[in-house]
Amino acid sequence: MSGLANILELKRDLAAFLGERVTDAPGVCKAHGGSESYHDSLPADLVAFPDSTAEVQLVVRHCAQHRVPIVPYGVGTSLEGNALTPQGGLCLDLGRMDRVIEINGADMDCRVQPGITRKTLNAALRDSGLFFPIDPGADASIGGMASTGASGTMAVRYGTMRENVLGLEVVLADGRKIRTSRRARKSAAGYDLTRLFVGSEGTLGVVTEVTLRLQPLPEAVSAAVCAFPSLAAAVDTVIAAFQSGIPVARIELLDETMMRGINAYAKLNYAEQPTLFFEFHGTAAGVAEQAERIQVLAADHGAADFRWATRPEDRSRLWHARDNTLYAGLGLRPGARAMITDVCVPVSRLAECLLETQRDIAASGLIAPIVGHVGDGNFHLLILIDPASAEELATAEALHARMVRRALALDGTCTGEHGIGLGKIDFLEDELGPAVDVMRMIKRSLDPHNLMNPGKVLRLAASPVRELVG
Amino acid sequence: MSGLANILELKRDLAAFLGERVTDAPGVCKAHGGSESYHDSLPADLVAFPDSTAEVQLVVRHCAQHRVPIVPYGVGTSLEGNALTPQGGLCLDLGRMDRVIEINGADMDCRVQPGITRKTLNAALRDSGLFFPIDPGADASIGGMASTGASGTMAVRYGTMRENVLGLEVVLADGRKIRTSRRARKSAAGYDLTRLFVGSEGTLGVVTEVTLRLQPLPEAVSAAVCAFPSLAAAVDTVIAAFQSGIPVARIELLDETMMRGINAYAKLNYAEQPTLFFEFHGTAAGVAEQAERIQVLAADHGAADFRWATRPEDRSRLWHARDNTLYAGLGLRPGARAMITDVCVPVSRLAECLLETQRDIAASGLIAPIVGHVGDGNFHLLILIDPASAEELATAEALHARMVRRALALDGTCTGEHGIGLGKIDFLEDELGPAVDVMRMIKRSLDPHNLMNPGKVLRLAASPVRELVG
Repeated sequence: MSGLANILELKRDLAAFLGERVTDAPGVCKAHGGSESYHDSLPADLVAFPDSTAEVQLVVRHCAQHRVPIVPYGVGTSLEGNALTPQGGLCLDLGRMDRVIEINGADMDCRVQPGITRKTLNAALRDSGLFFPIDPGADASIGGMASTGASGTMAVRYGTMRENVLGLEVVLADGRKIRTSRRARKSAAGYDLTRLFVGSEGTLGVVTEVTLRLQPLPEAVSAAVCAFPSLAAAVDTVIAAFQSGIPVARIELLDETMMRGINAYAKLNYAEQPTLFFEFHGTAAGVAEQAERIQVLAADHGAADFRWATRPEDRSRLWHARDNTLYAGLGLRPGARAMITDVCVPVSRLAECLLETQRDIAASGLIAPIVGHVGDGNFHLLILIDPASAEELATAEALHARMVRRALALDGTCTGEHGIGLGKIDFLEDELGPAVDVMRMIKRSLDPHNLMNPGKVLRLAASPVRELVG
Repeated sequence: MSGLANILELKRDLAAFLGERVTDAPGVCKAHGGSESYHDSLPADLVAFPDSTAEVQLVVRHCAQHRVPIVPYGVGTSLEGNALTPQGGLCLDLGRMDRVIEINGADMDCRVQPGITRKTLNAALRDSGLFFPIDPGADASIGGMASTGASGTMAVRYGTMRENVLGLEVVLADGRKIRTSRRARKSAAGYDLTRLFVGSEGTLGVVTEVTLRLQPLPEAVSAAVCAFPSLAAAVDTVIAAFQSGIPVARIELLDETMMRGINAYAKLNYAEQPTLFFEFHGTAAGVAEQAERIQVLAADHGAADFRWATRPEDRSRLWHARDNTLYAGLGLRPGARAMITDVCVPVSRLAECLLETQRDIAASGLIAPIVGHVGDGNFHLLILIDPASAEELATAEALHARMVRRALALDGTCTGEHGIGLGKIDFLEDELGPAVDVMRMIKRSLDPHNLMNPGKVLRLAASPVRELVG
């Protein structure tokens, strides 16, 4: 693709305005484009650190001129190789563009640069009485979260990035800058470009500003934990809760294996059964009523040992267990690394999908705890494998593929929140078939030279780089 | 565009499988394509009434072959000429495709054909304990509501069509059929084609099935009405309510003029002052708490005469007034017709936008009551004009244009929920500038011959039909 001469010329052109903020230092290039994951990648050829949208536009124009791929990069927490550089090229590190541009208290929205992380944003919002509710676990950058369509534990109440991004500023493949919408809370004006760019993983342009909806900090919060006799009983409780209109803020399912990991990791003594973690937001009377109603529903489904907490320190202790599922999961097999994946199915099919997956895990001989955003029908598998064993990797990949096919057979999706990246390109074809052709038509029309994060999300059948990305 | 010979051939081809369900009868063509509105239109050349997606695909393929435009049609309640046939062509009446295909109670979703209306759908849902919450006023078809990105009175609580359409089946310009997503409640798999087609007004394809999110019927509902000393006091109460996290289900603002119309039309004696209508959904305790909190906030902002109602008949009486704003508005000037328009601004700028608009109305000499979905910053103007007066039409159009420019200057949008249609093409350019070029790129790539509802939403600068649509 991008020959050495090309890269040297590009570096010289970019250094003219970025100075030392463009580099080909091997350590930096490897850290940005190389990967510890199971996805193959080359290091980036160059890494650039722009300070402004205007600089992003210039970088993109120079890359277009030299036909060098551009891969936007936030903080590197994505899970499907979304920000890797499989073909080399330029990694565009947006970490210096991390300002809060404005907070509009009366409108409950804010405008930020893409490099700010969600925790830093929430710290900046502390005095406003507002918060940004999307919590994918990692302290991801807002630009990265917009680009992958992130969601997480509170999506069941507050929605995903699709519902919480009000508008974007985007630099297109030819360096033009657009704003996808005004700041009004809703609009019926033309095609919904905001939602087109949300979840497009940098393949259609570079997100340079994000306008976000915010939520009022709840007056009262309470939390509860409750073990169930079976996964089906837990899922049925969740279905009953939503049919009753109980506006649960979070509702997380951990399976028996994950609870075993949690007990060992955090020295707790929870029942090692399928368990739901709840959080309620509202007025003091409202959260008490929600928790009582959930307790009744849970008891109807055979749950025992309903523990609930309203004091912040007690809530933290309760949720601390859930918030450490990655480390707790890894603790189940010291020295292992985790292949982390996600699928999402209609909640009516969730118990079936989970039980079949558990049986499949048992048959595989691997350990793979499950944690799920159960209100959305979304769950994660942490498949624990020996980093040195090619055989275990192959077993894990096959287990993963069967899980995705199972989800698709149940009218689900191959990813609820991690995105397609490099890892799920074939599954996207299985999932949506001819609709992927429409995505290709859009990709080709907006990025005719296939320079924007090439090789991600889609395989461009007619592209000259097919061999490389295929 | 579509010469007579073309049309006759197309009619013959379509009659081969539609029989009498394709017609060029002048009365039918005029009713479907002609217009009583202020938008210019030709009648449709042909009207087709398909029974199935397969028939829609065949119709689209034949139209593509003969290069005849296709305009999808639901029940004709759109307000910006969205379903008119300004260039003639074929009107695709989807009214016979009006079935509920499935209702999934546990998943709280349903799949319907596009011709079903929202009230018919809600009647079909009656025994399920669920309802479809989008209420744009008119009993619009679900396909039409998806295509215009409709919202209405309950959007502030439940979202607009963008948030409530889970997936679509769409027939593309070349007759191919795609499904934009699986039935999982969320997905990060590829570009969000669902949201691209929602609001695209039939310009990218024909919607042939819609999967919708549903909501549980609330256990308790209560309503309230309250007059304010000023528009600003009413808007500030709304802002305070949302900042407090009160999950109001509806919150509608009527200005002094509209209240005068309501009193005359429904023989009521409300104060002729800016007035908010509220509806609360939740548990019995929850709605009582919400209403009490709103009453305190309203009193803080100088409101008097807070009336509230929990019994269904009292609620109906209260909301009946709001639900008849069109007729009540028209009653202010017997014999007039209404130019109905909408804009949407950040709620912090709403009072300013409303007050300037009221001053502008007064200066124009016309009567134009205002009703607003105030929680979203969205409001409607009913400009009452003498149907025989070209001068009044010009005055109204100028008033309308100033209102849109005012909304844009306040970082708002030229339409919150009516869509662009024929009426707002130039305003879309003012609003989003270079982003409209991206919409054009998408339109050209998906509909290269510009046959899908041509002349709506976008002006294709390089199109051979520019003179006709310009």
